[in-house]
Amino acid sequence: MRFVFFSTPSSERARPGLIDGETIRPIEGLASLDELVKLDPAARTAALTRLGEPVGLAGTTLHAPLYPHKNVFCVGRNYLAHAEEGARALGKELELPSVPTFFTKAPTSITGPDATLDLSGTVSQKYDWEAELAVVIGTRCKDVPEESALDVVFGYTCLNDVSARDKQRATTQWFAGKTLDDTCPLGPWLVTPDEIGDPQKLDVSLRVNGETKQHASTAVMIFSVARIIAELSQGTTLEPGDVIATGTPEGVGFARNPPEFLKDGDVMEVEIQKIGVLRNPVKISAPVGALT
Amino acid sequence: MRFVFFSTPSSERARPGLIDGETIRPIEGLASLDELVKLDPAARTAALTRLGEPVGLAGTTLHAPLYPHKNVFCVGRNYLAHAEEGARALGKELELPSVPTFFTKAPTSITGPDATLDLSGTVSQKYDWEAELAVVIGTRCKDVPEESALDVVFGYTCLNDVSARDKQRATTQWFAGKTLDDTCPLGPWLVTPDEIGDPQKLDVSLRVNGETKQHASTAVMIFSVARIIAELSQGTTLEPGDVIATGTPEGVGFARNPPEFLKDGDVMEVEIQKIGVLRNPVKISAPVGALT
Repeated sequence: MRFVFFSTPSSERARPGLIDGETIRPIEGLASLDELVKLDPAARTAALTRLGEPVGLAGTTLHAPLYPHKNVFCVGRNYLAHAEEGARALGKELELPSVPTFFTKAPTSITGPDATLDLSGTVSQKYDWEAELAVVIGTRCKDVPEESALDVVFGYTCLNDVSARDKQRATTQWFAGKTLDDTCPLGPWLVTPDEIGDPQKLDVSLRVNGETKQHASTAVMIFSVARIIAELSQGTTLEPGDVIATGTPEGVGFARNPPEFLKDGDVMEVEIQKIGVLRNPVKISAPVGALT
Repeated sequence: MRFVFFSTPSSERARPGLIDGETIRPIEGLASLDELVKLDPAARTAALTRLGEPVGLAGTTLHAPLYPHKNVFCVGRNYLAHAEEGARALGKELELPSVPTFFTKAPTSITGPDATLDLSGTVSQKYDWEAELAVVIGTRCKDVPEESALDVVFGYTCLNDVSARDKQRATTQWFAGKTLDDTCPLGPWLVTPDEIGDPQKLDVSLRVNGETKQHASTAVMIFSVARIIAELSQGTTLEPGDVIATGTPEGVGFARNPPEFLKDGDVMEVEIQKIGVLRNPVKISAPVGALT
């Protein structure tokens, strides 16, 4: 199943829906996918019997599938070639920890598919892309064993962990460079695990203006989705609707030679096999004081 | 004004209230202080005219004043003597960034005054204390100038940024060691700015089993409350109910010689001038596999 959060020109309030071919069937009685994910399995099944009249997918606006009530959990340096390119670009020796490196992005950073990212050239001049497979948790859990960790997954979607490299590196902690408004495009829809199969067999890629910048398989993740959930949940309760970004492959802008950063007017596309394409144009305002 | 989120033996559902001498006046028609903080100023004033019959403060249970819908924003190394003790303990040279170091704690880590912290000796064996002044935002804002930053503050409270040092140091990012369940005691109440005056003139201290471990004035913060809000809001929208922990003074356990960590049965008290005392006993389960 593919779940969307959508609006139409005639009904601007966004509603949750289920994709059915070229149409969307609205899920009646629920205000958001967040509400759907928080239902227990029986209530969830019942909710999916209350579908409204189909709405053509063409002409609708898709929004971020959900907004968690906490920050998005993110994993840093989870593809070896990306960890290597980062160390090389920063002139550092590569040291890989034995556990995932977690950081976060505030929910205010989330935006939807096709939304133009409204970024400030004063706040940062080094905006960069990071295509990532995002996992949405469906079951409240804690201390989950790796063997059964995929059982708590509600679905998968695409995420672009847009990063302000100058703010990210200004202190030892990356958070300030990861949490700016409009730097967490999410979508276009949530895809349930039965359609995904093994989450470690998905091609992930990112294009800027049609040119492929990142392309790798989730098969080469250092920490698998199951391992990430197991590690994160040690001592920390995960809740339905939580979003986990699982790290980005090699090919980010700052590590290129010469380095590349997003420019006003660029269009990014994250594509993940069996999920789809998350496309976002970029608007970057001129820095205050810049010559025009 | 002092706002609490409280329950009584006869009315277990927690309610928002206003302290009035030795009593609490329930705020009728609101489910939480989070709802109060999200009202605009006129609606907030109106809400405070709808007060219920006084309830004796003695015998009530106080809960964390609010649970933000995103992670708690935290500032690391914001007191010079604490930054120095940390560098010394880790055998590193002290490098102070020119901007605050931000990281976060998930809202699942929040617990209330007098709540026993239920910590796992398997997940960490190095739980440590950090007394901090917490700021609650009252106004949606972005790109706030430092000069007017205190205008967006709804109130202040005490926070204990309990930290699992082994998990905090396992990777470059501190988050995993900061976000465990029950590691963010908050309270006992929200105190409005008119009662606080200058937030840079408050004594902050922490006691373990009655022995003072931390004691400093917010006057020696490297980045003031106003500067923290100004920096954090550059490019990032802050929302009513957001919580910002402003850093901890010297005297944490890991930097002591020899290092000290929390033990099962310890009682911590954070005390902040003009606010009050946030007290929490600690329960640490034996690590799995430990000899008993």
